[in-house]
Amino acid sequence: MSAIQGVLLDLSGVLYVGEQEVPGAVEAVERLRASGLPLRYLTNTTRSTRARVQQKLADLGFPIEADEIFTAPRAVRAHLRSQGLRPLLLIHPDLEPEFSDLPRERPDAVVLGDAGEAFDYAALNGAFRVLMEGAPLIAMGDNRYFREAEGLSLDVGPFVRALEYAAGCEARVLGKPAAGFFESAVSELGCAPEACVMIGDDARSDVEGALAAGLQGILVRTGKYRPGDEDGIRLPGASIEDDIGAAVDRVLG
Amino acid sequence: MSAIQGVLLDLSGVLYVGEQEVPGAVEAVERLRASGLPLRYLTNTTRSTRARVQQKLADLGFPIEADEIFTAPRAVRAHLRSQGLRPLLLIHPDLEPEFSDLPRERPDAVVLGDAGEAFDYAALNGAFRVLMEGAPLIAMGDNRYFREAEGLSLDVGPFVRALEYAAGCEARVLGKPAAGFFESAVSELGCAPEACVMIGDDARSDVEGALAAGLQGILVRTGKYRPGDEDGIRLPGASIEDDIGAAVDRVLG
Repeated sequence: MSAIQGVLLDLSGVLYVGEQEVPGAVEAVERLRASGLPLRYLTNTTRSTRARVQQKLADLGFPIEADEIFTAPRAVRAHLRSQGLRPLLLIHPDLEPEFSDLPRERPDAVVLGDAGEAFDYAALNGAFRVLMEGAPLIAMGDNRYFREAEGLSLDVGPFVRALEYAAGCEARVLGKPAAGFFESAVSELGCAPEACVMIGDDARSDVEGALAAGLQGILVRTGKYRPGDEDGIRLPGASIEDDIGAAVDRVLG
Repeated sequence: MSAIQGVLLDLSGVLYVGEQEVPGAVEAVERLRASGLPLRYLTNTTRSTRARVQQKLADLGFPIEADEIFTAPRAVRAHLRSQGLRPLLLIHPDLEPEFSDLPRERPDAVVLGDAGEAFDYAALNGAFRVLMEGAPLIAMGDNRYFREAEGLSLDVGPFVRALEYAAGCEARVLGKPAAGFFESAVSELGCAPEACVMIGDDARSDVEGALAAGLQGILVRTGKYRPGDEDGIRLPGASIEDDIGAAVDRVLG
């Protein structure tokens, strides 16, 4: 692994699973911090404000600053404000505070996060009708699924595909694996993409997405990882490690 | 329009919209019947049993026999029985009687119809988990949307795309526009595909689907039709008429 000058880390499935630390993850993050490498934590976990993400990490023992956390909702919020858009939000209720100051009447954009139980037929139909008027579809990611305590659950991606197909449109994805999302995070680190590495448990969204944006990538065998996932990475250069501890060993050489 | 020996007709949007006959449709169907051409009515409207479809048509004044009605649910039911599959059904509640005698415990197949309000997150997630165990996905169609009295609404297709993307699988579509569905209907008519014509209001599902299966096709400007829809038909040979009456004029030449 050559000349790493910055590290991007996924959260869920890499540092923790559900409410449990991945064994050795706190110690691994502490070693990374001690190395002095700039870090950002990239998450499409669109059920929490940045403040809540930080609180959860603190409760689990991770010493992480709020401004080290780079979330898809923050990227979406910035896009809506810069374009002057009034969103119809199909997002998790816990995320509403992140958008509370944006205009919502007569929506002219549709925003999808992993809304969970809020993905019901009436809500999806309402979003579809706004899209059919020509509004853009903006998504906080297009992950297929995530792992919860009781099993795999549908993430935002399937609902993005559903509305794209229904309305005959293409979503702007402002989360992993969109290249623009990785590029924004890298620019905060202040180094070249090829000198950054992304560590994640999702072969496509974390690792292939990072490789496609010109970064290095390490897939860890925790969280949503299933044997054989690495075979689905079509770009060359991915590394694979058992967990975040082994990944940090590799990064620090 | 050359040498027509059999006619397939879509129902919703061609014969009626909501609870209203398309003006002239009863008279057009009566002329077709009087011609002696064999007819089948093809519908992906997966919210009704065949018996209920017939009753609705009778109430609107259409003289149609039950065995002239060729529905996607009947095709799905035949497939499940022939394969000995135990379905998890994500279908409209009104359609449940069509499947009441099939085994349902420990499902090893997922069946999607246009479930409407029954498409909620918990139900979709349950179907996703069965698919991740390797069960096949069987769909009664993949239409994008349909027109209701209050506007356009999501049909089954977007939910097919959602589950295909989530589970990394490909659905077997036993409804329009699947070629196998048209071929089954044509075989009941007892004539060659190229001597059959399909009349419908959905450019892709009715007309392009029929053309792809080797039939002739007529798009009518009623129901879900929107100006310009015909431009989306990529195969040559489609005709376009104002409504079912004009389409029957063309067929009977």
